[in-house]
Amino acid sequence: MTDLTPSLTPNSSYSLTIRFQFPNRPGMLANVTKTISTLGGSMGQIDLIEQTRQVSVRDITVDCVSTEHAETIVAAVKALPETKVINVYDRTFTIHRGGKITVNSRIPLRGQADLAMAYTPGVGRVCSAIADNPEEVYNLTIKQNMVAIVTDGSAVLGLGNLGPEAAMPVMEGKAMLFKEFGGVDAFPICLATQDTDEIVETVKRISPVFGGVNLEDIAAPRCFEIEARLQRELNIPIFHDDQHGTAIVSLAALLNALKVVKKQMAEVRIVINGAGAAGVAIARLLRKADAQHICMCDSKGILSRDRADLNDQKREFAVEQGGNLADAMKDSDVFLGVSAPGVVSPEMVRSMAKDPIVFAMANPIPEIQPELITQDVAVMATGRSDYPNQINNVLAFPGLFRGALDCRAQTFTTSMYLEAAHAIAELVKPSDLNAEYIIPSVFDDRVATAVAAAVQRAARQDGVARN
Amino acid sequence: MTDLTPSLTPNSSYSLTIRFQFPNRPGMLANVTKTISTLGGSMGQIDLIEQTRQVSVRDITVDCVSTEHAETIVAAVKALPETKVINVYDRTFTIHRGGKITVNSRIPLRGQADLAMAYTPGVGRVCSAIADNPEEVYNLTIKQNMVAIVTDGSAVLGLGNLGPEAAMPVMEGKAMLFKEFGGVDAFPICLATQDTDEIVETVKRISPVFGGVNLEDIAAPRCFEIEARLQRELNIPIFHDDQHGTAIVSLAALLNALKVVKKQMAEVRIVINGAGAAGVAIARLLRKADAQHICMCDSKGILSRDRADLNDQKREFAVEQGGNLADAMKDSDVFLGVSAPGVVSPEMVRSMAKDPIVFAMANPIPEIQPELITQDVAVMATGRSDYPNQINNVLAFPGLFRGALDCRAQTFTTSMYLEAAHAIAELVKPSDLNAEYIIPSVFDDRVATAVAAAVQRAARQDGVARN
Repeated sequence: MTDLTPSLTPNSSYSLTIRFQFPNRPGMLANVTKTISTLGGSMGQIDLIEQTRQVSVRDITVDCVSTEHAETIVAAVKALPETKVINVYDRTFTIHRGGKITVNSRIPLRGQADLAMAYTPGVGRVCSAIADNPEEVYNLTIKQNMVAIVTDGSAVLGLGNLGPEAAMPVMEGKAMLFKEFGGVDAFPICLATQDTDEIVETVKRISPVFGGVNLEDIAAPRCFEIEARLQRELNIPIFHDDQHGTAIVSLAALLNALKVVKKQMAEVRIVINGAGAAGVAIARLLRKADAQHICMCDSKGILSRDRADLNDQKREFAVEQGGNLADAMKDSDVFLGVSAPGVVSPEMVRSMAKDPIVFAMANPIPEIQPELITQDVAVMATGRSDYPNQINNVLAFPGLFRGALDCRAQTFTTSMYLEAAHAIAELVKPSDLNAEYIIPSVFDDRVATAVAAAVQRAARQDGVARN
Repeated sequence: MTDLTPSLTPNSSYSLTIRFQFPNRPGMLANVTKTISTLGGSMGQIDLIEQTRQVSVRDITVDCVSTEHAETIVAAVKALPETKVINVYDRTFTIHRGGKITVNSRIPLRGQADLAMAYTPGVGRVCSAIADNPEEVYNLTIKQNMVAIVTDGSAVLGLGNLGPEAAMPVMEGKAMLFKEFGGVDAFPICLATQDTDEIVETVKRISPVFGGVNLEDIAAPRCFEIEARLQRELNIPIFHDDQHGTAIVSLAALLNALKVVKKQMAEVRIVINGAGAAGVAIARLLRKADAQHICMCDSKGILSRDRADLNDQKREFAVEQGGNLADAMKDSDVFLGVSAPGVVSPEMVRSMAKDPIVFAMANPIPEIQPELITQDVAVMATGRSDYPNQINNVLAFPGLFRGALDCRAQTFTTSMYLEAAHAIAELVKPSDLNAEYIIPSVFDDRVATAVAAAVQRAARQDGVARN
């Protein structure tokens, strides 16, 4: 879905901290900063580490565009006369050393009395209480707040099938987001198998510890079956974020974008480009939200009935008339891209109906750079944080699980997803709503609470809440 | 192995906090405390919560002997005139509410820049680095410090086959101990299967995240095969604490006890009562430590060659001459019990050789109460914290994994266990060594460091350290 080729804007994901030593003389620092800025590096924090009458030692943080760009900048500053580069830290790698999460005690262990309560012999009474009344596991253990983040490493970001070990940094990052935004404990389960039956079986076997399961970066179409079977065979909520997280946030943004252009969901013609996990889930959720005219494309063009290469999920959306993406976009009102960088041209956008809505969500490089169509679109959104209207799953999954865990939902239902989308959309007040503000920021701390409340309400209405 | 029937000494595992309200008059508090102490309750903290001219509200913490004992005390104080019991908290249950461990971020997520490094897009470079060089998983993820605590819930403490959910409080407690004493991150994996093949298969599938596996409370003899197969099929250290933790600490204590009585390991006659996971592992480790005369018993008596009911592990120790436990103990030098409460009589101890060593490690009620044989033993140890010489696995497993993880050991070897036992024993200085101090306290903070260093040294000698 996404591609990790570098963007054109320097950003923190390619951030270096360079430690310099140079003579303590006017102009020396300026030399360095000028070199960096001439080469397109974006400077952040500049710290003075040490200064004597002779020398200055400074740490300069530089955001770059790519690894190659970073190397160019380092080489250039190393070549400056009288300037010594003491060390170069790649900040992204530095924060990953030792892993990003840790397991801590919630209660102190100060002496024998604490030990006797938290461990043997006291713990035995707690075990017996759960054995006598299995529901007590939700009161007396971590299950009530613990989510398994399960992957087989088959579709890691846009990087492809990297396997379970290489997927770990993403899963640890996800666990951080769960905690930070939803107060949910989450733990990575990276599986050394990519067989559907084995994945289902393994998750079922480890399920006693967990109150929910978040499937992550599992390739389509296998991900659909895994989710469906786990949901059938376990009584805890199962969520495939690549599908439903993306769908919920896209729907939330679309609800508000339609208000901006004063069009109705039932009437607009929607093109979805990308028919993997995200594309299929978006299409399904939009249908439930009353979308009537959806045209899906994959890399080979429109999903049409005459194509012999469609899997079950793609066939679900096949239409009569085939064609390529440009054909699909002509006269459409909405373009939703969960595909690949640069696949949309300005001409395609100009061929859309009046006041077009374009969500170019390929990450980090969108289907079309917003700068190229500023005058041509009514509302534009991307997956990026450096443009307005960031479509980011972190708006959905922490609150969804917060709500599901709090009411001990036994499953997620479509109406829980729909209500979550509406809750996100409604955080943008009508008076604030405009083409550049259709969706709240991921750092808006009302989001998770609002989503959790909506999810709980829907769970109760659907009769899936146990608490 | 152990039994959780109550001991005779009030202890923290049956601890209540009772909130009282009574008239603010001399003698009222004394009435309450007298009632509690007459009934055998042991009072700890007494807090004044609120006091007016009319009334006092106080929290009194009371350690009891058993649930029934606690109920008796509560009923008695409730019956006191003018005294109102506002609330009774069972402290053990109170600390278990919500579970005992939590998953936290190790680094802050303060804004977009942090997100871009810890999660997308920056995390993609870290994933690629691991995909390119698999060993990097040890540098860039939690694997380097993360242990799976795996159980099938088949032998939870001495309570038996309670299943995976009821085992969770023990596993969470274990994770606390790993962190507190070894700085090791550990996470409970409680499996919804008790099939040996399925357990092995599941642990292998989830192994990418973990740098080691601690098997816990899995019934014998299945535990032996699971451990052996996992050790063969994975390249991370596998440890069954019920076996090796107990064996290491027992050996450490025995090494020092033999010094106290001035006897040699190769010469003493040792009786081991209990032929489950712990008993077999103790016997095996003692043999490696040069013990020549071991007689093992199970609930049916001495493991003798004429018995038809012995499994492979028991047959390993079968001797010519059968008999009961009393027969075995006659003229023996050492009794090691990992069996059941009260199975040893004072007469049996008196039938032992001169200066007998008795380790009655059934928990929480030993094979024989120390008070009954004070005059008859040279050295006595139990699993309890309220007698001298506590044999507690927490002396071993945190340091063992600390050492194994730090040198990236691919397995545990017997010499790592032997060195760990010697390291524990040697923390008791010769000048301090006496019959009541043969083993350091679990709160002696030198223990884990000393064990870790010894384990690393042995791992390097055995060629199993990768770092």
